[in-house]
Amino acid sequence: MTKSQDKHVLYVKEELAQNNQRATSYDVARAAGVSQSAVSRCFKPGASVSEKMRKRVQEVATVLGYQPNAIARSLITRRSNMVAVVINNDTNLYYPELLVELSRDFNERGVHMLLFTLEHESDVANILDQVWQYQVDGVILAAQLSDTQLSFLGQRDIPFVYYNRTSDSIPCSSVQCDHFEGERLLVDKLIAAKRKRFCIITGPSDSSVSATRMQGALKRLHELDISDVQIIEGDYSYHSGQESLISMIDELDWQPDAVICANDIMALGCIDAARNHFKFKVPKQISIVGFDGAVPASWQAYQLTTVTQPLELMAQAAVDILMQRIEDPSLPPEKRSFSGVFSPGNTL
Amino acid sequence: MTKSQDKHVLYVKEELAQNNQRATSYDVARAAGVSQSAVSRCFKPGASVSEKMRKRVQEVATVLGYQPNAIARSLITRRSNMVAVVINNDTNLYYPELLVELSRDFNERGVHMLLFTLEHESDVANILDQVWQYQVDGVILAAQLSDTQLSFLGQRDIPFVYYNRTSDSIPCSSVQCDHFEGERLLVDKLIAAKRKRFCIITGPSDSSVSATRMQGALKRLHELDISDVQIIEGDYSYHSGQESLISMIDELDWQPDAVICANDIMALGCIDAARNHFKFKVPKQISIVGFDGAVPASWQAYQLTTVTQPLELMAQAAVDILMQRIEDPSLPPEKRSFSGVFSPGNTL
Repeated sequence: MTKSQDKHVLYVKEELAQNNQRATSYDVARAAGVSQSAVSRCFKPGASVSEKMRKRVQEVATVLGYQPNAIARSLITRRSNMVAVVINNDTNLYYPELLVELSRDFNERGVHMLLFTLEHESDVANILDQVWQYQVDGVILAAQLSDTQLSFLGQRDIPFVYYNRTSDSIPCSSVQCDHFEGERLLVDKLIAAKRKRFCIITGPSDSSVSATRMQGALKRLHELDISDVQIIEGDYSYHSGQESLISMIDELDWQPDAVICANDIMALGCIDAARNHFKFKVPKQISIVGFDGAVPASWQAYQLTTVTQPLELMAQAAVDILMQRIEDPSLPPEKRSFSGVFSPGNTL
Repeated sequence: MTKSQDKHVLYVKEELAQNNQRATSYDVARAAGVSQSAVSRCFKPGASVSEKMRKRVQEVATVLGYQPNAIARSLITRRSNMVAVVINNDTNLYYPELLVELSRDFNERGVHMLLFTLEHESDVANILDQVWQYQVDGVILAAQLSDTQLSFLGQRDIPFVYYNRTSDSIPCSSVQCDHFEGERLLVDKLIAAKRKRFCIITGPSDSSVSATRMQGALKRLHELDISDVQIIEGDYSYHSGQESLISMIDELDWQPDAVICANDIMALGCIDAARNHFKFKVPKQISIVGFDGAVPASWQAYQLTTVTQPLELMAQAAVDILMQRIEDPSLPPEKRSFSGVFSPGNTL
């Protein structure tokens, strides 16, 4: 740089500082004495620009603290490199693990996650408009949508992947653990262990995952001619697992020898209630099974018998499906379903 | 709408559909026969525009499926309504709870979270450039930065709040649980319980939270003339809690009657190793304490003695501090520190 060029750059820098402004590509252009489109080209991978120009612009950009603006660029490329992840159910410790997994997989591809959390699965409508406004490239939906809401995304050409849910009526991509099959397997294991008096602790009534799991268990029980099953609604939390077992036995006067919980965390509460409130030996007097393969289920104090979702595979599959459809929106939807893995544990 | 106006709108709609494009404000303007700036004003709260104009534009926008674009708007308002949240440490189940809390608080203010997760606390440098490129309005940092990295944010006028960390050398906003004080309290409780042979299981060596906690414990122990303390490095996980206790006793041949763990999850592993591997009665033969107030610490199988961070208060404080500085960047940094709450549990 010549001295006078140098002075001019510092003048622009000073001016920006006084006005408390971030440097834009126009400021870099002005300071470097080149056009704004030349600056743009210097920061666009693969764009045609001379080595001398690139060097000069990068020097000036460094002095001014300029960084190409991902958001402005997204208006040109029509890619924001952001995806929305919509999750619900803060009482289920399982989902935070999913977040970490998804975040890792997206970050490896230079894509960032805009996080939308729902207090209740049924709140999803409120956030769809916001998802749209941020012009994300795609959406991972770990919450149930109505067909109308799915159409909203479809009409706006926003690729999305259902996580642990699917729709039979609207074509859509999804990644699931086979909840239905997993519960059938657990029922068969309980029957093999000579269990006779069954009860089920469900998740919240608006949880589609809980509904599918419980249908799987009930269908298998009915096939085996076991129709006298006590069902009680939980909310996926440890405390609801405890309280459900206590009220089932103390209030409903139904003493089960097999408890099927719609998730692991409730099953852990159920184990503690069985051991501490009722002084039952688990599994000698009562078998308790969960679903998920949540981290605490494997801890020595519990060693829960459960079906483990292959979380890493599922997260990776969801990211793959979504990114492929962002790259090429003409790809048809794809559904992938993974079998859960039986974790024998010590409560059956 | 007159018929011919109507027809014109449908023509624009058809054209967009054929080209597979989202409607922009220019498309709405063209279809409604008004200027683009009129359309902008119609979607800007408080802007001056006639009721007739607003009605007409909204009708057309509805037909075309137009929604004002949050990203384009951010280029004008210089606000993206996005904040970055940088977290590390996927082995610590405590942080997912923080995410849910922060997400709730930000969403209430119409602000969305862009999530950056780190495998290791020391990876933070790699993501600062990306944070900057997305032009977020502010950053919550639940990972340690060097002073140089802090200056990077400062020079770019990006407001940020340190979560559970602070800097003594660079002015910055922070929200913390008083780790130092909390550990001193735990040491005093252990001494009151007549404990004599102390050991410490730390977090990973790059965790500043672990370092502060362990300094607090060690300083108090030294004040009480207890200098013979065994220290072993864990990684915040359940398994490292188990293994650390086992290797301390079996390999280092040091049998403690008090174990201070840098977080709750390690303490739970430590309890299980004490009970199952060594057949110790907890707390009769050995006291074990943690730090955090993580959800599983209160489960009946553990009932861990710990110091609980006031998570909701801390998350709310971090959001308040950040949003105030986004609104008014001239506000000076503010540090808020909350005392942890002693949770007696049953392991001391």
